[in-house]
Amino acid sequence: MKEVKEGERLDYINKGRLQIIQSPSVFSFSIDAVLLARFASVPRTKGNIIDFCSGNGIIPLVLTERSQVPILGVEIQPLLCDMARRSVQINKKEKQVTIKQGDIITVAKEAGSAKFDLVTCNPPYFATKGEKEYNENPHLAIARHEIYCSLEEVIHACSQVVKQKGKVAMVHRPERLSEMITLFEKHRIAPKRVKFIHPKKDRDANIVLLEGIKDGKPGMACLPPLFVYDEKGSYTKEFQNYYEGK
Amino acid sequence: MKEVKEGERLDYINKGRLQIIQSPSVFSFSIDAVLLARFASVPRTKGNIIDFCSGNGIIPLVLTERSQVPILGVEIQPLLCDMARRSVQINKKEKQVTIKQGDIITVAKEAGSAKFDLVTCNPPYFATKGEKEYNENPHLAIARHEIYCSLEEVIHACSQVVKQKGKVAMVHRPERLSEMITLFEKHRIAPKRVKFIHPKKDRDANIVLLEGIKDGKPGMACLPPLFVYDEKGSYTKEFQNYYEGK
Repeated sequence: MKEVKEGERLDYINKGRLQIIQSPSVFSFSIDAVLLARFASVPRTKGNIIDFCSGNGIIPLVLTERSQVPILGVEIQPLLCDMARRSVQINKKEKQVTIKQGDIITVAKEAGSAKFDLVTCNPPYFATKGEKEYNENPHLAIARHEIYCSLEEVIHACSQVVKQKGKVAMVHRPERLSEMITLFEKHRIAPKRVKFIHPKKDRDANIVLLEGIKDGKPGMACLPPLFVYDEKGSYTKEFQNYYEGK
Repeated sequence: MKEVKEGERLDYINKGRLQIIQSPSVFSFSIDAVLLARFASVPRTKGNIIDFCSGNGIIPLVLTERSQVPILGVEIQPLLCDMARRSVQINKKEKQVTIKQGDIITVAKEAGSAKFDLVTCNPPYFATKGEKEYNENPHLAIARHEIYCSLEEVIHACSQVVKQKGKVAMVHRPERLSEMITLFEKHRIAPKRVKFIHPKKDRDANIVLLEGIKDGKPGMACLPPLFVYDEKGSYTKEFQNYYEGK
């Protein structure tokens, strides 16, 4: 299997500890995915993890630094699965990480209910159908728009595959927070931890991280926020440490 | 009417621009109430405001600095209504602020539906019945525990009295945020703005401010957070400015 194909590039992440194949025209991971992989409460040595909407496998790869348990990444686009699998090989994580091609609703049905200790998901953010975007670049449109799955379908699938008292961690835009919380509650995932990422300290958040527990008790914690840039436009130390997993 | 009674004291707020009667054994306002009065999107010159669970009238008083419209404060405890009314007189706000004694469910029914442009509320925070606390100090227990009204009853009353596209602003503990959002949605108040207050920048939030619009469109903004204390234990400039209304 040729490692890096035409139009792709190999990027270093986590201070060079991991490498990942990206393609500007097909899929590049966002900082959102890395932050989710840092934020989620992971089972360290026992249990298992499933990552829905895996893209190029960024979340499973970052999670290998935090956990020794098997990780299953699910991605609907064959081209992205291929990229993800090659990245897994490059990092020699084949024993821990499996990438499965398929849509999450079917995969959730096949997997059966209550199978995973942690479900992570960086779903498409835009509720619009994205028809214009689809015509221009279907790969990016599928990753960004709710074309193959709505937010409710994603949360329903998460709720199906997670074990009792298992965790579901998701990243989204704060615009959708109210909807996320309502859907978590509807699908019996009690929202437990929330963390907001603001571009700067005086700006509205543009990323929200939310974790819930299947059939958990009510009661939420709002974690300290992160500001990405300081007043000079450099990354803040807090952001850098969180992002790099210090 | 004797201005300040035995066991009470007269405190200055808003850098001395307002005075308020407090009583350590009956009721003292918290910073939460002041922050809510700063946070709410107020009608400035037209319309009207109702404040539920007014306590000693802190929110109506602070709101007089931000708005010229009539403000109705509703408080169930006669002793607190008396304190609130005297504070209104001391500040010469009788023309703008009226304090009504009653429970919010009855007042909401009497007021009729869709009457107010803004509803503010700093409700009791604790879902427990507070029987022990009630026996020790019923005044404080009623203000702090859901003895006379549950969170759902409060939100239902807010939804009844607010006009179409009017605003409901509430302060609570972040533990209850998920419940608040679910109840806002249930009672047709679309959550629109949320702001978290953290004691320090590396600590979980301990206050959340939430505002919604009756039958508003979905889509939330998460405002910049506030940190109360800096690393040296002094108030941060951002907090002080917000609190004092600069």
